[in-house]
Amino acid sequence: MTEKTISRAVITRLPRYYRYLGELLENDIERISSKELSERMNVTASQIRQDFNNFGGFGQQGYGYNVEYLYHEIGKILGLTKIHNAVIIGAGNVGRAIANYQDFEKRGFHFAAIFDNNPDMIGRRIAGCIVMSTDVMEEYFMNNDVEIVALTVPKSSAPAVAAKVVSWGVKAIWNFAPTDLSLPGDVLVENVHLAESLMRLSYKIKEKDM
Amino acid sequence: MTEKTISRAVITRLPRYYRYLGELLENDIERISSKELSERMNVTASQIRQDFNNFGGFGQQGYGYNVEYLYHEIGKILGLTKIHNAVIIGAGNVGRAIANYQDFEKRGFHFAAIFDNNPDMIGRRIAGCIVMSTDVMEEYFMNNDVEIVALTVPKSSAPAVAAKVVSWGVKAIWNFAPTDLSLPGDVLVENVHLAESLMRLSYKIKEKDM
Repeated sequence: MTEKTISRAVITRLPRYYRYLGELLENDIERISSKELSERMNVTASQIRQDFNNFGGFGQQGYGYNVEYLYHEIGKILGLTKIHNAVIIGAGNVGRAIANYQDFEKRGFHFAAIFDNNPDMIGRRIAGCIVMSTDVMEEYFMNNDVEIVALTVPKSSAPAVAAKVVSWGVKAIWNFAPTDLSLPGDVLVENVHLAESLMRLSYKIKEKDM
Repeated sequence: MTEKTISRAVITRLPRYYRYLGELLENDIERISSKELSERMNVTASQIRQDFNNFGGFGQQGYGYNVEYLYHEIGKILGLTKIHNAVIIGAGNVGRAIANYQDFEKRGFHFAAIFDNNPDMIGRRIAGCIVMSTDVMEEYFMNNDVEIVALTVPKSSAPAVAAKVVSWGVKAIWNFAPTDLSLPGDVLVENVHLAESLMRLSYKIKEKDM
């Protein structure tokens, strides 16, 4: 395996392959050629072969890819073969959307708790998540092995909350606050900046209108 | 202006520049060097100069950048100097999060309505958005100029809803459903696939643990 050297662009495409292969599996499709996969995914067949070659190929010339095997191999590469314990901080709409998203659990992301400081929310259950007071957050982190924090608090409190959970040992933050967190180098951050996504759309609109 | 030829990577960075410059403006900072901006944003100063050179530079050697000017110029490039009329389809958590996000309005994205088929929701007001029945959706689109649709419906209904609004003349879709929409080539789509973002985080975790 040469995973260490593969580019960020390939990594960005892997979850999409994984999603498509999952859909094929659900439809009981056992085998697919790079040509068929390419038509469904709207990428070139040579791009697909090149991407998969980063991981040793997966396929047999002329026979196409075994969907289930490929699905599991890509899942392994993406780190989806283990359970990831996670919590959500912030029970606003975005936090609740994450708690309700059943696909995450299916892929091994177990969101056990959702912290908020709104007394009206505390004690409620959102899908499999219990809303807990931020007052007991430190205690929770001390007693549970939390790998991922989904940070869905307002921008103003995000840096302080992130710093706190990092001081409690968290090494991976899924950040929805519209700000870049400045954290120690060994903390992994994946940002979802909705406003930036919307601005890319307005850029495309403007480009087309010119 | 040579905007037509600039790369997707630069476009991806522009909204982030815009966000930082907006924060500088809020803090009454009038002028900034590429070195200072680079330290705040954690990109190299030469990257910043190179990115801005795509748009004619913006800066004066030795004087740094005029923050307000740069903010407005990047806003123009991103198409933020006009009002974008938008609606949300799907008043679930993600739809409600978008309706509640006040920064969008500030940047010229006006979400006027949010459509849902849940009778309990209809008639409610979420921030500036009125929840309307999907029964009156076609009529609404016929009588209003809708530029952007934020699609926050379940995956199973997303393709049909997208096809419908496209048949009513919509040319830009901000898609939150975890599926790729297959639409005519002149329809712009910007996807927010949360599961893929979370998988990139688990990939990084696995990489680090190896």
